[in-house]
Amino acid sequence: MTSSDQLDAAFSALAHPARRAILGRLAEREATVNELAEPFDMSLPAVSKHIRVLENAGLITRGRDAQFRPCRLDPGPLEAVATWTEQYRHIWEARFDQMESVLSEIKGETT
Amino acid sequence: MTSSDQLDAAFSALAHPARRAILGRLAEREATVNELAEPFDMSLPAVSKHIRVLENAGLITRGRDAQFRPCRLDPGPLEAVATWTEQYRHIWEARFDQMESVLSEIKGETT
Repeated sequence: MTSSDQLDAAFSALAHPARRAILGRLAEREATVNELAEPFDMSLPAVSKHIRVLENAGLITRGRDAQFRPCRLDPGPLEAVATWTEQYRHIWEARFDQMESVLSEIKGETT
Repeated sequence: MTSSDQLDAAFSALAHPARRAILGRLAEREATVNELAEPFDMSLPAVSKHIRVLENAGLITRGRDAQFRPCRLDPGPLEAVATWTEQYRHIWEARFDQMESVLSEIKGETT
């Protein structure tokens, strides 16, 4: 995969609340598919499908224990997403500064 | 939209290299659909469709000029993506530290 393909896969995998919740769980500790499925009102096959999407995007690796194959978070693609997104930080920070100066102007006028 | 729906839409919109490239162009200055289409080997309707996806995710706003309706980057959803992703920074930084200490151990053994 090129780094652009990796970003495509990571962004696409992150575009679902259940998949983001699964990563949140795995950020605390590794877990089996059954453990991950517990809190969700979802069938085991549906959860397994979400896990496969995360695995294909490189966000999850599976352990070698034949019976349980625990899932582990791999933060590499999250770092790539953060690096890509950070290049726009100056834009939202500039907008925040603008809003702040408009607000303080309004405040100055009303006091 | 809830903030989870907004994240779904933002992540999904960012999962395509052409849409990420369009945002890159708009980070420099606003542009019309025709201007945005120029560098792409893509039909105008295809580019328009990508722009609509970005607009629906709140990543682009359109000007009111009836004829050109220039596109502008709205960094709000990018900030939401960054905030969500940052909660995992300690994990990739910890992994980087681990790799570094393994590397310096190996170095220590070979010298």
